[in-house]
Amino acid sequence: MEPSEQVDYISGGTRLFGIVGHPIAQVRSPEMITAELRRRGHDAILVPLHVLPDEFDHCLPQLMRLRNLGGLVFTIPYKLRACALADELGAQARVVGAINALAIGKDGRWRGDIFDGLGCVEAFRRRGIALAGKRVMVLGAGGAGSAIAVAMAFERPVSLRIFDVDIERARLLAESIAHANPGVPVAAGAPTIREIDVLVNASPVGMLDDARLPLPLTSLPRELIVFDAIVKPERTPLITLAEQFGCTTVYGREMMRGQIARIVDFFYAA
Amino acid sequence: MEPSEQVDYISGGTRLFGIVGHPIAQVRSPEMITAELRRRGHDAILVPLHVLPDEFDHCLPQLMRLRNLGGLVFTIPYKLRACALADELGAQARVVGAINALAIGKDGRWRGDIFDGLGCVEAFRRRGIALAGKRVMVLGAGGAGSAIAVAMAFERPVSLRIFDVDIERARLLAESIAHANPGVPVAAGAPTIREIDVLVNASPVGMLDDARLPLPLTSLPRELIVFDAIVKPERTPLITLAEQFGCTTVYGREMMRGQIARIVDFFYAA
Repeated sequence: MEPSEQVDYISGGTRLFGIVGHPIAQVRSPEMITAELRRRGHDAILVPLHVLPDEFDHCLPQLMRLRNLGGLVFTIPYKLRACALADELGAQARVVGAINALAIGKDGRWRGDIFDGLGCVEAFRRRGIALAGKRVMVLGAGGAGSAIAVAMAFERPVSLRIFDVDIERARLLAESIAHANPGVPVAAGAPTIREIDVLVNASPVGMLDDARLPLPLTSLPRELIVFDAIVKPERTPLITLAEQFGCTTVYGREMMRGQIARIVDFFYAA
Repeated sequence: MEPSEQVDYISGGTRLFGIVGHPIAQVRSPEMITAELRRRGHDAILVPLHVLPDEFDHCLPQLMRLRNLGGLVFTIPYKLRACALADELGAQARVVGAINALAIGKDGRWRGDIFDGLGCVEAFRRRGIALAGKRVMVLGAGGAGSAIAVAMAFERPVSLRIFDVDIERARLLAESIAHANPGVPVAAGAPTIREIDVLVNASPVGMLDDARLPLPLTSLPRELIVFDAIVKPERTPLITLAEQFGCTTVYGREMMRGQIARIVDFFYAA
């Protein structure tokens, strides 16, 4: 066999993972999660699986019967619908009401959970920043913001404040988090940095060419820790301002890396 | 993005192909067909898909709904059952009654055909050996032998003789090939090299540690062309004997390479 006649990254024994979405070409999980699987020494690959919305309910249960499939990642528009595929839901998923990963255990049961927020917590953990004891302000209560707020609440902050332009959405999220974390004061309210230790932007304000800040500010105290979930650009207007004032900043890409690590942990957990 | 954070062989835009079988870990198509896809510049991968026999009929039609799936290869035990999945069958498949590849056309229709025999014909073509005008003896009328005999008959040999230890099986195959090729004399009969130009071993005799020849022989005329479909060992007892007598020999691995080339042609044909 000549070397050029075969590739070294796939074989009959390779364990299969997939990302399910519509559309699919833009997703980054195949190259990034596969790299993490390989880095840990697994003979495994994560491939794109393009499923149309009308076909999701019939297709997914059959896909999940592939005996060499270890897990799935779900992206737009399937994070809510995918919940129905899980035999068990994790603590995050039960509060958020959505999942972005499913993994099959040795017992043949499919476990689902959502890792966007856990990825953010992991990013803080890797920086040595404990969220326990901190006063946290989260801007944005959409998909990313909900998941981040839920995950942060499980870390036992002193307080958690949530803002969204949709006031009712912020209020409902705060209620649901408070219910799951009886000891943590959670409130919906206007954006502020007064009596806040950690400022989280999970709104789309500042994405790509958007030069706006997600809240009206001209200066920041240097003790403030500022995280922005936006990946592009790496330095959002908020991050740029925070760095001008000497704040500790945590980048969206760190959350992405944290999430990848936690999803791969989950794939091989049971 | 650091280079180690992503691999370069899979992304959201990668076209997906699969091999369906049970068991699956032993198959070689993932590394070999993927290498051929890459060699031709396609952003594509062929992955193992382990489907249990009880689940095949429900699972396959759903798998075929993945919008980024371009085609499937079928191996043991699915070459017969897979016929039912095709909207159209190719000329080879109609005679053999089995397929080992399905490809979706731009019209959304799934075409099925069998490439074992075409791979053998391709191996001869690459050596510059025309089968037209030759007298061919095929030993073995099982899966591989049937496919090879059918493909060779389409090349218009002067005569085609088929032997199998199961005499009835050889007779039925000869009948079916004769029916599809009215001008080609096809007969079932005892193994011989008298008045034969091309000797084909498609029986398992000589595989691995089996030191036997597939027919009783002590010498061979040097004009004889000898092909053995066995891949391991590369030099079977028959090939070794043929080379001692100066015959032209064609190896099982050449058929495998020929088949891979023809399957990739087929995947991107329509």
